[in-house]
Amino acid sequence: MKIDRLQAFSDGVFAILLTLLVLDFKLPNYKIGHLGQAVIAQWPILAAYMLSFFYVGTLWLFHHDYFAKIKRTNWQLNILNLILLFAITLINYPTSLLSEAVAQRNLADIRFAFTSYALVVLVISGLFWVLYRFMAVHQDLMIHQEQHEQFYRAIRNDPLRSVLIYVIALVGIQFNVVVGALLILLGNIFHFIAYLRLSRNIEKHHLIE
Amino acid sequence: MKIDRLQAFSDGVFAILLTLLVLDFKLPNYKIGHLGQAVIAQWPILAAYMLSFFYVGTLWLFHHDYFAKIKRTNWQLNILNLILLFAITLINYPTSLLSEAVAQRNLADIRFAFTSYALVVLVISGLFWVLYRFMAVHQDLMIHQEQHEQFYRAIRNDPLRSVLIYVIALVGIQFNVVVGALLILLGNIFHFIAYLRLSRNIEKHHLIE
Amino acid sequence: MKIDRLQAFSDGVFAILLTLLVLDFKLPNYKIGHLGQAVIAQWPILAAYMLSFFYVGTLWLFHHDYFAKIKRTNWQLNILNLILLFAITLINYPTSLLSEAVAQRNLADIRFAFTSYALVVLVISGLFWVLYRFMAVHQDLMIHQEQHEQFYRAIRNDPLRSVLIYVIALVGIQFNVVVGALLILLGNIFHFIAYLRLSRNIEKHHLIE
Amino acid sequence: MKIDRLQAFSDGVFAILLTLLVLDFKLPNYKIGHLGQAVIAQWPILAAYMLSFFYVGTLWLFHHDYFAKIKRTNWQLNILNLILLFAITLINYPTSLLSEAVAQRNLADIRFAFTSYALVVLVISGLFWVLYRFMAVHQDLMIHQEQHEQFYRAIRNDPLRSVLIYVIALVGIQFNVVVGALLILLGNIFHFIAYLRLSRNIEKHHLIE
Repeated sequence: MKIDRLQAFSDGVFAILLTLLVLDFKLPNYKIGHLGQAVIAQWPILAAYMLSFFYVGTLWLFHHDYFAKIKRTNWQLNILNLILLFAITLINYPTSLLSEAVAQRNLADIRFAFTSYALVVLVISGLFWVLYRFMAVHQDLMIHQEQHEQFYRAIRNDPLRSVLIYVIALVGIQFNVVVGALLILLGNIFHFIAYLRLSRNIEKHHLIE
Repeated sequence: MKIDRLQAFSDGVFAILLTLLVLDFKLPNYKIGHLGQAVIAQWPILAAYMLSFFYVGTLWLFHHDYFAKIKRTNWQLNILNLILLFAITLINYPTSLLSEAVAQRNLADIRFAFTSYALVVLVISGLFWVLYRFMAVHQDLMIHQEQHEQFYRAIRNDPLRSVLIYVIALVGIQFNVVVGALLILLGNIFHFIAYLRLSRNIEKHHLIE
Repeated sequence: MKIDRLQAFSDGVFAILLTLLVLDFKLPNYKIGHLGQAVIAQWPILAAYMLSFFYVGTLWLFHHDYFAKIKRTNWQLNILNLILLFAITLINYPTSLLSEAVAQRNLADIRFAFTSYALVVLVISGLFWVLYRFMAVHQDLMIHQEQHEQFYRAIRNDPLRSVLIYVIALVGIQFNVVVGALLILLGNIFHFIAYLRLSRNIEKHHLIE
Repeated sequence: MKIDRLQAFSDGVFAILLTLLVLDFKLPNYKIGHLGQAVIAQWPILAAYMLSFFYVGTLWLFHHDYFAKIKRTNWQLNILNLILLFAITLINYPTSLLSEAVAQRNLADIRFAFTSYALVVLVISGLFWVLYRFMAVHQDLMIHQEQHEQFYRAIRNDPLRSVLIYVIALVGIQFNVVVGALLILLGNIFHFIAYLRLSRNIEKHHLIE
């Protein structure tokens, strides 16, 4: 089957998820005349929003570049994509937990919020690894399959690296929330660097016209 | 008329519905420092979310594969599709009822929630049966219409089978909620198997390039 | 400019608006063990939802068929389309007012809700009339422009007829809410019939391949 | 890489953002039988909704026309587009603040709301300037690159003009809220005029078929 409806549907889910994240910004309870202070005290919402917006945005970039290499889909890929989208939509909730817990400044709650965030991004990275493996096995679905091996070799461990970072973050959070939070941020930044590697790799091999 | 805007519009509705389901995850009332327990007590939301996400996801897969066989649309199909989308969007509400009722652990409420869930999925399966019948009659709208009879024969009773399972579930819920719930789950799993049958059938007959 | 991004963007707005309407279904306040009665008492939400879903759905069908006749867009059409989408998204709010007012059974509130509903649909029909006029003047944007006059003559007064029905409804509501409500329903049904006329007209003139 | 998925994804974000804005219309607290007065007292919501709907709508028109000139994308443009969409989704929140503050009629709160609104639109205009600069440098991504210089020269300062208006508005708000608000409105109207200039420029140079 053709790949374009799968792309359009996935684009839809990504676009909606990104935009729904903005609904976390809710009018605070405030004393009339002091809206400013109340809004500024909501900075954790903005911080959590930025973290998740650029994380999900990077996932979209990955999805965009990766599926540009695929020419056909089959039922296994359809289902794998659906499971991946499921895990990605979940990020909405830990994002809310995070902004709430940080605003309330309770250490136990912040730890729990970061732990649930780390768990979701860990699962997403794991599923990307499954997707990469699937592609390695089903080269007949790819454009320019003769160059796929070479292309794949350079990037195939990126999802595992990202899983590793999040596992360390998950453990780290239990001991020191700040270190754990920085590790999650590092994981997200690593995602972004991995995207640049993927993107340049595709351009170098002229895999897409 | 061409089929592509109908597909794009339906993809949009499916994508949004799937993503809106995640809004059911709302910050619980919690004692500061005990966010973790409060969130974990929300497991029925996650369970209901997974049930409906993969149910709606499977419906999208069906829609995707089925409409890939159609080359043109007319006003009857446009309207049939609109009624189908209407019924599918309704699933959002019983999903909320289900997670609320299970969280409150009241048997009468759980029974009501499962009953309303079963009713909506029953109507959806019934409408898919109408869609299958419509296609059987309007073979001029299809790609490769000469092979359609053969393709259709193998799958035409799948929606009726699914209606039957949900009718049994609907009756079962009134006597035993657990049995009824399992029957609904069975119905959703059957959907998924029916999708695999449809998908392989299409690939076997090379109905789509 | 090409018309396809305008269509895709409009499809997006329609799909989202249809799906957002479902958010009106909110968990009612209920006595544990009596969820059923509380949900059944929400029937006005279902009624208002159905009214607006099929109204917006019919508008989409119109938009779909009408823009299938257009081959190019320009800035005037872009802006006209944007104003039309603005008016259509507004329907969300009177729909909420309607289900609330009917549930509370207060005559003055019901009258206000129906009045605001009638005002919004009146504006939408008026804008569709502007759209029809625009098309009559800018035949160079159309596919098969030589047949456009003939096609246009048959349908050009449909939006005005619909405006007329809603004006009568608007007056009627002030005297008798039930009669006014039936007139709004009649207006929506007329929309649907007008769509069928448009659709058959297009098929008869083979205006779209 | 091809540009179409980037366009489709951006269209999705724009369409969802426009439609989510309507969620600001929430049922007011009202005395039964006085729904009308309560709704009419919500006029600031409608005013803020119109301001933001047509602002975001104009941004979409810009995006639509500008990306119609681009034939390929690369990772820099992907990321730039993502940052732009991020800033645009933020507009949702100052819109809510604005309608709340105006409804409560507190001068300090209104000033804060307008200030945050002006800051967000200022950032958006600044990012459009970066986008214009990017295009001037990467003419190889454009359709009809030989005419690009001539096309670009006429419009390249429009985002800067718009930044300037918003900076003046930002300062003005601190002294006189009404003047500041009018300057923001003027900025949005200037956007619209700048769009018309861009659109006519494209048509004049026949840059898009």
